[in-house]
Amino acid sequence: MCPKPQSMKTMPAKVIPPGGTVGIIGGGQLGRMLSLAAARLGIKCHIFAPESDSPAFQVAAAHTIAGYSDAAALKAFAQTVDVVTYEFENIPADAVALLSSMRPVRPNAEALAALQDRVVEKTFIRGLGIETAPFAAVDSEASARNAFASIGSPAIIKTSRLGYDGKGQRRVHSADEAVAAWRDLGRAPCILEGFVDFARELSLVAARGVDGTTRCYDLVENAHEHHVLRTTFAPAHGSPRLTEEADEISRKIVEALGYTGVIATELFETRDGRLLVNEIAPRVHNSGHWTIDACAVSQFEQHIRAISGWPLGDPVRHSDAVMRNLLGDEALGWAPYAAAPGTCLHIYGKPEPRAGRKMGHVTKLFPLGTRPKT
Amino acid sequence: MCPKPQSMKTMPAKVIPPGGTVGIIGGGQLGRMLSLAAARLGIKCHIFAPESDSPAFQVAAAHTIAGYSDAAALKAFAQTVDVVTYEFENIPADAVALLSSMRPVRPNAEALAALQDRVVEKTFIRGLGIETAPFAAVDSEASARNAFASIGSPAIIKTSRLGYDGKGQRRVHSADEAVAAWRDLGRAPCILEGFVDFARELSLVAARGVDGTTRCYDLVENAHEHHVLRTTFAPAHGSPRLTEEADEISRKIVEALGYTGVIATELFETRDGRLLVNEIAPRVHNSGHWTIDACAVSQFEQHIRAISGWPLGDPVRHSDAVMRNLLGDEALGWAPYAAAPGTCLHIYGKPEPRAGRKMGHVTKLFPLGTRPKT
Repeated sequence: MCPKPQSMKTMPAKVIPPGGTVGIIGGGQLGRMLSLAAARLGIKCHIFAPESDSPAFQVAAAHTIAGYSDAAALKAFAQTVDVVTYEFENIPADAVALLSSMRPVRPNAEALAALQDRVVEKTFIRGLGIETAPFAAVDSEASARNAFASIGSPAIIKTSRLGYDGKGQRRVHSADEAVAAWRDLGRAPCILEGFVDFARELSLVAARGVDGTTRCYDLVENAHEHHVLRTTFAPAHGSPRLTEEADEISRKIVEALGYTGVIATELFETRDGRLLVNEIAPRVHNSGHWTIDACAVSQFEQHIRAISGWPLGDPVRHSDAVMRNLLGDEALGWAPYAAAPGTCLHIYGKPEPRAGRKMGHVTKLFPLGTRPKT
Repeated sequence: MCPKPQSMKTMPAKVIPPGGTVGIIGGGQLGRMLSLAAARLGIKCHIFAPESDSPAFQVAAAHTIAGYSDAAALKAFAQTVDVVTYEFENIPADAVALLSSMRPVRPNAEALAALQDRVVEKTFIRGLGIETAPFAAVDSEASARNAFASIGSPAIIKTSRLGYDGKGQRRVHSADEAVAAWRDLGRAPCILEGFVDFARELSLVAARGVDGTTRCYDLVENAHEHHVLRTTFAPAHGSPRLTEEADEISRKIVEALGYTGVIATELFETRDGRLLVNEIAPRVHNSGHWTIDACAVSQFEQHIRAISGWPLGDPVRHSDAVMRNLLGDEALGWAPYAAAPGTCLHIYGKPEPRAGRKMGHVTKLFPLGTRPKT
């Protein structure tokens, strides 16, 4: 049933074999799940994070507690690992440059730079002929007014960098509100985006290997609450054309970036059936957590494989799935989930269930084709 | 789709919640996979093992390097954990007694004592009205001759304690050979077993919770090579009666032992369709590795749940599976497995691929009902 084992000599050069070490910048739940996935493959992880109680430390062979601007600590860290990756995209460019000078950083610094800034990101996407929400850069009161005039009402103003889960964004209904919101956001470089009257929020998790092979997981449907992902339904119901189009968008993006690793593309499906890219995350993504339990190879393992020069895994799902985040105190109510049939519980080992904090998730499996409706 | 979260206050007392710590005696691949499973639930692990390069250390929040007879180290270890379990059954009784005086040890010391010695184990099983191979105790030359006379040829003589994977056993064809083999095995207490002309080797992994609930995974079929498990086929093909009978055997055993945790029962199916118990392992088992990838809750998570006072998970499989061990150098040939569709690769992080050593395993998934024949 299984292919015969063969010698490692037939593998291409620069593969990080079992026993090798992946360095991960960031010690949250994504770093933790990457570390657990690496362990399946016999690959060790070294986690670099500033917080001494980082959840990923509990499951990694080594960790460094230091700030992302601590050059000496970054150097010492890089010396112990074979490749560097990250669980979040807001890493200081200096840190990435330093790490890249010592070890392969995957995804690469150029991809990260293209996706760290919303204006640069959306400009890049448009440049590929892929549709986005209407947008304009805001870096002054005058540009705020001009942007609002061209985009129209309502619009959303966001900091161009560092925002996530709805932090650092405001909805505005007039040029004056746009100016006030920009001031309120600290006069930081911002983006003003037009409101998209979407039918559904979808996302696609894909991976590209060092050899350029790209594999896509199933297109999924997401429900958000207060700008935070609440539930993912896998797969998204809909026509095969939709999936093909999402795959095509994802492939164009990773090819253009010369990307290595897992990438998540958040999409809007409009009421007339078009796909718009909302955001790209150059990393494993909350909307791919269902793959841990519903696929032979999860997004976390796929990322470890990609950055380690391994063959990508088969992204086919063996079950339908519904993934629900456990936010804040909800994680204290784990017991009924633990007792529910066909249900996979994941708790992240965070010290405190602060309001809205992602503390865990639960994935319910269904036989193929039997996923309940959204 | 998911039941509503509820407060932890409704849980029974003495549950070890997320954030708690499980202590594991033994740092091999079973301890490693237990630790990875605990991490999914937000439970930390502290591994106690003598070898400084124990594979489980790489994925655990804490570890102690010390011998199993080091009372001071065992005490210090017990103080840091909420419950103690183990990945192998040959733990010195003194260590178990010491640990039991400080923390719950699950499975309990009595169960361990009943299953550490082959003569005691088989006598216990017979006492439950469950069939085993014919056997007799050997602790002298005279008893070796008497045992052979009553059992007949061929017979297998094994040390009553500490043997595994065919180590410490000989096949004998005469009373003189039985005596010589007993001498050869160091005149240790032994068991002489009659040869069973079996049709198939089967096994059943089950779990019993602290509340007495018992759940069984599917009965599986195993193929051994040189006394080492080579391949597990899940599920075993055969009549529902066979499964019911195996479940019933397993339930009788755990009830009689007042057992908590995962237990594996190795069975022979005779050519006329009877089930004989070959061996019981009071722990997670190689023939249950397929559950990691083919069930919502693996045998490893099930064990952590059981000993932590959690509800047991749903043991239903979502896929058929064939699990193959990677022994010694075979693990160096991981690359084709990594590239194969529907295939889950597991490498244990052991330092050296010694001949015959269990270095990893690979599980191929198949849609329900499509598992290839053995």
